[in-house]
Amino acid sequence: MGRDVFLVATDGSRAKAEPWLAAFGRRLPHLDVVALGDPFPRPSVRYAAAWKHPHGALADLPNLGTVFSLGAGADHLVADPTLPAGVRIARVVDPDLTARMSEWVLLHVLEHHRQARRYRRQQAESRWDDDARQPAARSVRVGVMGLGVLGVDAATKLKAVGFDVAGWSRSPRDVPGIASFAGRDGLGAFLRRTDILVVVLPLTPDTAGILDAALFGALARDGRLGGPVLINAGRGGLQREADILRCLDDGTLKAATLDVFEREPLERASPLWRHPNVTVTPHNAALSDRDAVADLIAGQVLALERGEPLRHVVDRERRY
Amino acid sequence: MGRDVFLVATDGSRAKAEPWLAAFGRRLPHLDVVALGDPFPRPSVRYAAAWKHPHGALADLPNLGTVFSLGAGADHLVADPTLPAGVRIARVVDPDLTARMSEWVLLHVLEHHRQARRYRRQQAESRWDDDARQPAARSVRVGVMGLGVLGVDAATKLKAVGFDVAGWSRSPRDVPGIASFAGRDGLGAFLRRTDILVVVLPLTPDTAGILDAALFGALARDGRLGGPVLINAGRGGLQREADILRCLDDGTLKAATLDVFEREPLERASPLWRHPNVTVTPHNAALSDRDAVADLIAGQVLALERGEPLRHVVDRERRY
Ligand SMILES: NC(=O)c1ccc[n+]([C@@H]2O[C@H](COP(=O)([O-])OP(=O)(O)OC[C@H]3O[C@@H](n4cnc5c(N)ncnc54)[C@H](OP(=O)(O)O)[C@@H]3O)[C@@H](O)[C@H]2O)c1
Ligand SMILES: NC(=O)c1ccc[n+]([C@@H]2O[C@H](COP(=O)([O-])OP(=O)(O)OC[C@H]3O[C@@H](n4cnc5c(N)ncnc54)[C@H](OP(=O)(O)O)[C@@H]3O)[C@@H](O)[C@H]2O)c1
Repeated sequence: MGRDVFLVATDGSRAKAEPWLAAFGRRLPHLDVVALGDPFPRPSVRYAAAWKHPHGALADLPNLGTVFSLGAGADHLVADPTLPAGVRIARVVDPDLTARMSEWVLLHVLEHHRQARRYRRQQAESRWDDDARQPAARSVRVGVMGLGVLGVDAATKLKAVGFDVAGWSRSPRDVPGIASFAGRDGLGAFLRRTDILVVVLPLTPDTAGILDAALFGALARDGRLGGPVLINAGRGGLQREADILRCLDDGTLKAATLDVFEREPLERASPLWRHPNVTVTPHNAALSDRDAVADLIAGQVLALERGEPLRHVVDRERRY
Repeated sequence: MGRDVFLVATDGSRAKAEPWLAAFGRRLPHLDVVALGDPFPRPSVRYAAAWKHPHGALADLPNLGTVFSLGAGADHLVADPTLPAGVRIARVVDPDLTARMSEWVLLHVLEHHRQARRYRRQQAESRWDDDARQPAARSVRVGVMGLGVLGVDAATKLKAVGFDVAGWSRSPRDVPGIASFAGRDGLGAFLRRTDILVVVLPLTPDTAGILDAALFGALARDGRLGGPVLINAGRGGLQREADILRCLDDGTLKAATLDVFEREPLERASPLWRHPNVTVTPHNAALSDRDAVADLIAGQVLALERGEPLRHVVDRERRY
């Protein structure tokens, strides 16, 4: 009987798997750490760590108990219909990644709030004009869609800077200083009081395409910024890019900042790149640090072997 | 014997004084609120409120006890040699203005930290490239020069976002989580550990021109951002613009964000407007709200009349 196997399942190329093999090999020397293309006895695979693996790659592994997501979301794992129902999925919850997401959110909320684009344009024209009445942060309503690990941290920091912050989640959440709205029933009231919409939802069948023209049309029109602003760092599948463009052009949206896209990398032909009121960042609002992720996953494996419970388990019914 | 007079002393034009006359008239109906050009009995003037008044305008007022600054700094008042020594100067400390300054500081620190300029350039080229290793905020050292009302608030919020924050002041300050450096003796060590320098100092004979090539050369060279960054929202008189330009060009500084200038408005011919690594904002990091300022000053007048002590008094020896 050979050693237990820890399988690294990435999207195809061996080069993508290589650094992960090294990282886990160092941390789990008692396991055989292998990549998808390697020869290994399928019954020996107890653990897997995956990022956008080819569907089917995690089937026919009779003793696979747990698969870890190598990134922050688990949508790529939940979406694999060939993953047996008994396999548990665990996410990585990295405080460092959470902090980076909040940096990105604060930067882009403040960009809109403080009219950074306007002042860059004035600078390009060597024009001194301070006369914009700047609303105070407390008179600007930020709405955070998704009050999970990322949403709570971002909402709390936005509140500390002074914004009037609310959050929307599936179930009601109690976060100090943050107004809570929940479920489809609470969505209308949440949108009606939102000037800047910050999206850090996971992608699930319930949330796919939620950011569409109907939703944008329900945002506040009486705010201090001259129109509602969309900021999405969740997943591209949440948004309808054709609707975003149309709503920017007809004034339903004033501006959008997007880190994620329906197809990534964003194709060169997309009008989003060149739209004057769109800011594009290349899905790097919060990159995971490989060493931090490997530490957290290896730590979970060792905890499981000591008989401790698995943490950050994805609910396969809810799909996040 | 007529009523006491409250004198509004602005820089020349009646139009500048007008809205202040209305604001104080409403709040202090028991006083005669007048502007510089108006006729009024000089011995009746008990209070003045000033912003860049012509020197001499506040002399020969035998019963003037207190002059309030209409803006955040008092450098324009302290610098007037004709203001009698017995007249007390009080600043306005407006929590709203403090919050706005911290918004501006956070926005511009995050701009540099998250390489916003780089990603705007990539967007302009429709180029998707996420491979920049983004340092975490905790590995970026921000140094706040001036740990007064504004500096403490900005430093505390920068710390909450995750940055490694230190502050520099005249006397040592005890701010939770913020490393404190003080005086000329502490300046070298403070600069050596600073990647992003945020300046919210007052302008005094001790601080005039402090932001020069020698100081920039003493900033950290081993940081994660590829060179030190200067952010000044104190006063233009703190900086030597010729030195800033030279240090940007020879690599001593990586970038600068400036809200204040040696002469304002910044003249169209200044190369700062067009420098690729300079961000200019038109001295509006933290505009005072007229109603908030009038409330605070009128409140102080009423408190004085009740026999309470004057608050936020400027030390005319220290000059801030
Ligand atoms: N752009 C980037 O660089 C980047 C980096 C990391 C992560 N992300 C994305 O951010 C997402 C969120 O991460 P997280 O760690 O904060 O996830 P999380 O802890 O699982 O939180 C998810 C939040 O979304 C809410 N939610 C889920 N489905 C919903 C629905 N149908 N209606 C209303 N609310 C719903 C949840 O509600 P409950 O509180 O009621 O459960 C929860 O508040 C990830 O899934 C990933 O897609 C992006
Ligand atoms: N750009 C804008 O829109 C804007 C708006 C508002 C204000 N401002 C500027 O911001 C300045 C600061 O405002 P504030 O309310 O924070 O002032 P403050 O409360 O008086 O604080 C001043 C700070 O600077 C320190 N300091 C003064 N002289 C120093 C010296 N020679 N060496 C070292 N440290 C010295 C003081 O040290 P101690 O703590 O030891 O006293 C104190 O920490 C104002 O004077 C104004 O010029 C700009």
